[in-house]
Amino acid sequence: MSRAHNFCAGPAALPEAVLQRAQAEMLDWQDKGLSVMEMSHRSADYVAIAEQAEQDLRDLMQIPDHYKVLFMQGGASQQFAQIPLNLLPEGKVADYIDTGIWSRKSSQEAARFGQINIAASGKELDYFGIPEQSQWQLTPDAAYVHYASNETIGGVQFNWVPQTGEVPLVVDMSSDILSRQINVADFGMIYAGAQKNIGPSGLVVAIIREDLLGQARAICPTMLNYQTAADNGSMYNTPPTYAWYLAGLVFQWLKEQGGVAAMEARNREKQALLYSAIDQSELYNNPVALNARSWMNIPFRLADERLDKAFLVGAEARGLLNLKGHRSVGGMRASIYNAVDIHSVQALVDYMREFEKEQA
Amino acid sequence: MSRAHNFCAGPAALPEAVLQRAQAEMLDWQDKGLSVMEMSHRSADYVAIAEQAEQDLRDLMQIPDHYKVLFMQGGASQQFAQIPLNLLPEGKVADYIDTGIWSRKSSQEAARFGQINIAASGKELDYFGIPEQSQWQLTPDAAYVHYASNETIGGVQFNWVPQTGEVPLVVDMSSDILSRQINVADFGMIYAGAQKNIGPSGLVVAIIREDLLGQARAICPTMLNYQTAADNGSMYNTPPTYAWYLAGLVFQWLKEQGGVAAMEARNREKQALLYSAIDQSELYNNPVALNARSWMNIPFRLADERLDKAFLVGAEARGLLNLKGHRSVGGMRASIYNAVDIHSVQALVDYMREFEKEQA
Repeated sequence: MSRAHNFCAGPAALPEAVLQRAQAEMLDWQDKGLSVMEMSHRSADYVAIAEQAEQDLRDLMQIPDHYKVLFMQGGASQQFAQIPLNLLPEGKVADYIDTGIWSRKSSQEAARFGQINIAASGKELDYFGIPEQSQWQLTPDAAYVHYASNETIGGVQFNWVPQTGEVPLVVDMSSDILSRQINVADFGMIYAGAQKNIGPSGLVVAIIREDLLGQARAICPTMLNYQTAADNGSMYNTPPTYAWYLAGLVFQWLKEQGGVAAMEARNREKQALLYSAIDQSELYNNPVALNARSWMNIPFRLADERLDKAFLVGAEARGLLNLKGHRSVGGMRASIYNAVDIHSVQALVDYMREFEKEQA
Repeated sequence: MSRAHNFCAGPAALPEAVLQRAQAEMLDWQDKGLSVMEMSHRSADYVAIAEQAEQDLRDLMQIPDHYKVLFMQGGASQQFAQIPLNLLPEGKVADYIDTGIWSRKSSQEAARFGQINIAASGKELDYFGIPEQSQWQLTPDAAYVHYASNETIGGVQFNWVPQTGEVPLVVDMSSDILSRQINVADFGMIYAGAQKNIGPSGLVVAIIREDLLGQARAICPTMLNYQTAADNGSMYNTPPTYAWYLAGLVFQWLKEQGGVAAMEARNREKQALLYSAIDQSELYNNPVALNARSWMNIPFRLADERLDKAFLVGAEARGLLNLKGHRSVGGMRASIYNAVDIHSVQALVDYMREFEKEQA
């Protein structure tokens, strides 16, 4: 078949142009007679690929020089342990903001390694909104404040950046990095699993202010130590070379598209198209507070869940894939990351209207 | 150019047929309209890919049912921490056999988490041989005995399996897994970074006897806990889906080639061809004891190191790539893993003879 409209939450759609280039280069990269995945990570060719990827990400996000960019493995879930092992010295407290499943998982893992404080929770809002900062109970001398800027499952996103003064802000941006403009200097550390807006799974990118390095606990495995990764250009051991190369192709593609500002404009348009289709219908519903609605992951329910199956079957027949909601939420979810074109969102909206009419 | 002869130590050459299939399926896997790397790891299609890969590996290595097969991230270097965190309870001792750089690194990392005993070392043999087991100082009730079956840098390989009675044997097989027949039941745990004989980097495979699970220390990060990986079919979080798929393609290719027995026969022939060329020459030399010579990584020096550069330039002109030895050893190294065909070894031997003649 031709390429489908892929609304998967992750691993997610990649730009077709990136896949085409990877395909063309699969057996023979730039006339060298081998695939990128067959190159030594220490070779001049591969080091150039890796460095270009980092530079392109620095350009796209305007990352200041006093931040290190690390390419690591283990996904965001491994970061949930690495963060306290590296940034939470014994005797200090880390503040966590609980706005859904992923931020909760991060706090639960951190609590295994040190003292944490849940400074705010979306629980009273049924996790359909984000508590205002005026209600947060922050620890004055916390080691850091951690939050997730976008909850992939709940479809809840911060449209503002918390103000924590001298306390470093650590943010899980797995599902909205590069989707809108941010100021890196607002953060002590930004991290993101690659498989949503960056590339394939098996790669996690961390952007960390240099002064936060060098505090790792004695029990931190060498491979989980940010200082080790920084000192070795993310090549203390063999990195996930092919995933890093693909991330680099995505960064190049983003630059060609006009960078993060252009992506923000497109994403604004895409989410508006889908939310307005939901809000204007009698059949579909999204429960999230207007000021906390995600631009990336849009869950919606049908008024009668007995229609779910027919909706999904009809969608799949039209090449609209992976719309089933997360098992903990039910209903539908459309993930519309950078690589999902507005034509895919339009195709979904057209189908949603058609399906609703058929039910009338 | 056409495909080169790639002697890289890792990430290493992959079978051309595997790359061709990956290329063909890059944008559209089995008419589904998406790439494997764009699939949810929870989708029926991807789960089938992952399970088939595991089954093919089980078939190839005849892995008994009471062993779990885990697909993880972080490479062998992360395993160096995971092994003591999972298998070395407080108060117990782990024995390590030091036969080169990689086994030494594994013992150094383990020593950060518990008490270890270097039960034997190749130091007195200048790391050009493997101490006989009669000389080992094993701890009677050790938690495990760890060794590396093949040292990628030194080119030293065990051609026998240590006998440790009831004490589980843990082996780093990163650079010789699937290259010759072994009996999995001789081991408590086998692990291997993928980027030599399995697939691309960013994936590590562990085969572990079930009764060794469930002992993880309290300080073990959830993502590093073998029990967590086993309980979740290696999908506690998003696994490196594309690397796992490529490993599966390599396993299928190995089956088509006749399995591990066929590989062993080919590898026997390949190493004999190269070592005999070295031993018959006046120019080339390999210092490793005959009974400890690696079939996978063959380091050799030129009698006059001032010829090294000319040798490498001439090799590259003939499409013989990545022959430069590891920086800690110097000279040359030819890595001839499963995916390196005997025609590549023959091309290397032909060039070596030609180069030697030119010097006469």
